[in-house]
Amino acid sequence: MRRAAVVGIDLGGTNTLLGIVDREGRLLSDIKLPTRSYPEIEDFVAALYQQAQDMAFTLGVELKGVGVGAPCGNYYTGTIEFAPNLPWKGVIPLGALLQAKFGLPVRVTNDANAAAEGELRYGKAVGKKNFIEITLGTGLGAGIVIDGKVVYGADGFAGELGHVIVEKNGRQCGCGLRGCLETYVSATGVVKTFQEKIKNGAKTNGVGAPLAVTARSIALAAEKGDELAVEVMRYTGQILGEALASFVAFSAPEMIVLFGGLAKAGKLLLEPTKIHMDQNLLRIWRGKIDLVISGLDENQAAILGAAALAWGA
Amino acid sequence: MRRAAVVGIDLGGTNTLLGIVDREGRLLSDIKLPTRSYPEIEDFVAALYQQAQDMAFTLGVELKGVGVGAPCGNYYTGTIEFAPNLPWKGVIPLGALLQAKFGLPVRVTNDANAAAEGELRYGKAVGKKNFIEITLGTGLGAGIVIDGKVVYGADGFAGELGHVIVEKNGRQCGCGLRGCLETYVSATGVVKTFQEKIKNGAKTNGVGAPLAVTARSIALAAEKGDELAVEVMRYTGQILGEALASFVAFSAPEMIVLFGGLAKAGKLLLEPTKIHMDQNLLRIWRGKIDLVISGLDENQAAILGAAALAWGA
Repeated sequence: MRRAAVVGIDLGGTNTLLGIVDREGRLLSDIKLPTRSYPEIEDFVAALYQQAQDMAFTLGVELKGVGVGAPCGNYYTGTIEFAPNLPWKGVIPLGALLQAKFGLPVRVTNDANAAAEGELRYGKAVGKKNFIEITLGTGLGAGIVIDGKVVYGADGFAGELGHVIVEKNGRQCGCGLRGCLETYVSATGVVKTFQEKIKNGAKTNGVGAPLAVTARSIALAAEKGDELAVEVMRYTGQILGEALASFVAFSAPEMIVLFGGLAKAGKLLLEPTKIHMDQNLLRIWRGKIDLVISGLDENQAAILGAAALAWGA
Repeated sequence: MRRAAVVGIDLGGTNTLLGIVDREGRLLSDIKLPTRSYPEIEDFVAALYQQAQDMAFTLGVELKGVGVGAPCGNYYTGTIEFAPNLPWKGVIPLGALLQAKFGLPVRVTNDANAAAEGELRYGKAVGKKNFIEITLGTGLGAGIVIDGKVVYGADGFAGELGHVIVEKNGRQCGCGLRGCLETYVSATGVVKTFQEKIKNGAKTNGVGAPLAVTARSIALAAEKGDELAVEVMRYTGQILGEALASFVAFSAPEMIVLFGGLAKAGKLLLEPTKIHMDQNLLRIWRGKIDLVISGLDENQAAILGAAALAWGA
């Protein structure tokens, strides 16, 4: 009998990663597809199917299910709904299309929830019943785990913590609101903070031209000791820490995991975040909430999380 | 065979209500004890036991369990922990004491969670899987229901939404933090808002002397059309609505239930709350979150919720 495995798919605006994962969470094989090369969703689904079949054949495994982490992915309906950065507009029945093509159970969730599933099964949160995964990328996503399960809420969209408003009449967000957490705490937010400070007369010598700057170059400059870059990371950590304190008051997690590019800034982000979180917590929680950087490889987390979902399907 | 019933206890700083409740949530009999008359917890437990026995005997029911809603009550440990308004200091093993005395299963939770349990089983939230109960009293408490269960978190203290910070460097809270939601949205908060506005030169003719004012007198004056009182309710609703929008982003509930004295202000509080909640929500949720006033009698909610817990014990 062939060994059982599932397909884990990390659907992104630029690239889609597809992996074959065994029951122990080992990524047996993976491949990258350029999402934008498939303007028709049917062609995209056909390509995913073909790749998965080829890989399963080569590996000699039998596929048992498919899991997908996708921006604006809805766990309940299996649809992708109005994803601004994907080539397909409106409500896309991705789960149903994949199910028809593969003839296997399919689970869809959003990318942050997939990362939380991965962290729960294979990362820093193994054995934890209550934690929050914060994904720091272009935006800020979150997967909330309560009693060992990712929270989806009434409509499948729980955990939109990037759109908690942290500054009244603050920065304009792509969602239409102002002052959303992700306009401050994300790669985009960090660049914006840097540019605002330059505009207000701050000086830097380590980062380069303000208009070409990226979150990565700011993080690197901060590591090298550029004062402005350090201050940008500190400010970002302050806003994040204050927001995390609210999240703790909500679900009383034992751990908060930071995941994604910005999380790699390490101590320079983590320390101010922790200080400001603790300052804004009730005494019962002060010093008791573990704040950690994800244990998962950035390129594998969503694949593994999606695969974990597929195993549960 | 005698009919089965449980004991529901609503433990308050001034009074403790004890009721005998059947499986259908009918309050068969209840009694009030003055909490402060029992400086020793053992005497208090003995009095609760004696009353419950007498009532059960009179009703001809067999007691099957005990549920308690108490400030700072911990669901996991059955203890009351550092409750500022109760006569017993430190960590009180109320659950263990009751269990030893009654010889029955005992469940303890905090008062807001008890109200949420009551709302879930017998109130407006019957059949709802995801909702948030906000209790508006001297302070602001919350019970969060996800997937049909009240959220307790890693330590039993989830749902401390009164201590989400809504105003940086805002009003001093009794918890030691500044700008907590409950310093604005609660009976105390409403009075404070009124007094601040008077101090800043606002005029009122319907409320009475600013120093003797209560949340109730402000709500009554607002109903009669006093402009300042209406503005106080509007401002309170604004702060509450903004906070509720954050809570929706967290757990995506289908309903938010307001409970307690201040909730009785009705439309004058509810309408601005709804407007500001919707203005601060992502488009996917705008207009879709039911905001309602509790269907439970204020004096019975915590008893019924505690009883519901006891039935589940």
